[in-house]
Amino acid sequence: MPLPEVSEIQVRVNYSETDQMGVVYHARYLVWLDVARTEHLRSSGTSYRELEAEGLRLVVSDISVRYRQPAKFDDIIRVRCWVRDVATRRVEFGYAVENGANGRLLATASTGLMSLGTDMRLRTIPDQVRAALRVVPDPVRLGFTTEDTQ
Amino acid sequence: MPLPEVSEIQVRVNYSETDQMGVVYHARYLVWLDVARTEHLRSSGTSYRELEAEGLRLVVSDISVRYRQPAKFDDIIRVRCWVRDVATRRVEFGYAVENGANGRLLATASTGLMSLGTDMRLRTIPDQVRAALRVVPDPVRLGFTTEDTQ
Amino acid sequence: MPLPEVSEIQVRVNYSETDQMGVVYHARYLVWLDVARTEHLRSSGTSYRELEAEGLRLVVSDISVRYRQPAKFDDIIRVRCWVRDVATRRVEFGYAVENGANGRLLATASTGLMSLGTDMRLRTIPDQVRAALRVVPDPVRLGFTTEDTQ
Amino acid sequence: MPLPEVSEIQVRVNYSETDQMGVVYHARYLVWLDVARTEHLRSSGTSYRELEAEGLRLVVSDISVRYRQPAKFDDIIRVRCWVRDVATRRVEFGYAVENGANGRLLATASTGLMSLGTDMRLRTIPDQVRAALRVVPDPVRLGFTTEDTQ
Repeated sequence: MPLPEVSEIQVRVNYSETDQMGVVYHARYLVWLDVARTEHLRSSGTSYRELEAEGLRLVVSDISVRYRQPAKFDDIIRVRCWVRDVATRRVEFGYAVENGANGRLLATASTGLMSLGTDMRLRTIPDQVRAALRVVPDPVRLGFTTEDTQ
Repeated sequence: MPLPEVSEIQVRVNYSETDQMGVVYHARYLVWLDVARTEHLRSSGTSYRELEAEGLRLVVSDISVRYRQPAKFDDIIRVRCWVRDVATRRVEFGYAVENGANGRLLATASTGLMSLGTDMRLRTIPDQVRAALRVVPDPVRLGFTTEDTQ
Repeated sequence: MPLPEVSEIQVRVNYSETDQMGVVYHARYLVWLDVARTEHLRSSGTSYRELEAEGLRLVVSDISVRYRQPAKFDDIIRVRCWVRDVATRRVEFGYAVENGANGRLLATASTGLMSLGTDMRLRTIPDQVRAALRVVPDPVRLGFTTEDTQ
Repeated sequence: MPLPEVSEIQVRVNYSETDQMGVVYHARYLVWLDVARTEHLRSSGTSYRELEAEGLRLVVSDISVRYRQPAKFDDIIRVRCWVRDVATRRVEFGYAVENGANGRLLATASTGLMSLGTDMRLRTIPDQVRAALRVVPDPVRLGFTTEDTQ
């Protein structure tokens, strides 16, 4: 069975995720990215729960998000997720957050994760996990603007 | 009265902010940044509540965070906040998240905000608000890594 | 088509929902109840999004939860939801939160909601909405203990 | 030094705590109660962080909240906290959530906590902790309505 290169999840926006602007609060997107990443690992044959039980932790080391269009209460949100880069002790995921009804791009994001042991020191990602994390070119332009200001 | 160029808030980590890794979940930092930004505006003479009452909204358009050291339950966290850049309809804030007890740098971050009207269209930031948002050079190196992978 | 008397949703526990005790943080259950309630309304022919668009709000006025067994990361959680009581301007929902794999009861809950207009004053629940909210006896014993201490 | 019988904390409502109704989302109150409880323990001479380090956990077993008035963005919220009841392996806290500016009562709540060991089995609360948890009569009427429907 070929492994998925770009996985996909759907969530429905709950009232708790909105703010008084009438749109989804920006920090909530990070949780959707986490859900997408966990499912991407699962569809690549890796249960993050099992990884942790074996003493490995993938810890978020950096995150960039560009917000383009608001998400609203009761909307179906689709998050596509893929691996942008993988090294012995680091993996970077890319994300496209879209409106599930009309496909409109709501946000793009990238997160870097470091592989740590239970002692919180860097640890090599197991070979079979790394082999399953197939790097693909970004299917959408992430278009981060922070790079301009560096 | 001279306006503060780098403001500072303190929060104590609550149990709800931890995850099963025994550290603060990464998305919680965005809420601390929001608290810091709101207080930075207040110390610059601008109440965000009043801005909204006047029909102006500052909407997060992009965010970058680099996580360096974990924060833990019951820690006192200090967030320093400053303005990195300001334009007619956009403002960018920088942040240093530190352990309040030992000063250790836990994370650095940058957020861009767009100024919108109640119709969700771009709107010029009022002059007196913009004048109070004094740009300062980053007091710490933000050190984002995502730029490397663009 | 007969309306469901007890509806059912499933969610998978995300990492963001855990705390450093290694279980789901207790406040997160309230969000699951909200998801269950929204879907119960939908399956009863009422979109809460549409209710709000028509100027009606269902506001939580009281909540009771009894926690029995912990939920853990990556668990599938099933929430069953039903109407316990309905009046002209108030409705009370009951909930059973269960482990989706083994059916074990994790928590029971009850929430009262008041019907308000956009002016935040009490407003009668529209007849066709109320008619669809069919009261059923609790399918599980809620077993709240707070009543003992009143 | 006399121990406080009713402790008090203040928090300021952050944007992340609001929902699209323009008020604080109901589940957020549980986090405020947690902050208040942690500070009540601290003012009683007990650091919850230290309790956990010694292998003891206080786990929420039941919760009741009655919401009376909405809290809004940027409001200062005061939470008063006290011990309603204490037994060898259980303690119950009461709470009054108030608007810090005008003293108006926003919500009342009660939470029961069980004392567990790291094996998640019931464990006796240490004597010196229990001795410091002084029971006081409710300073406000909690007025839960769920008891009516039992």
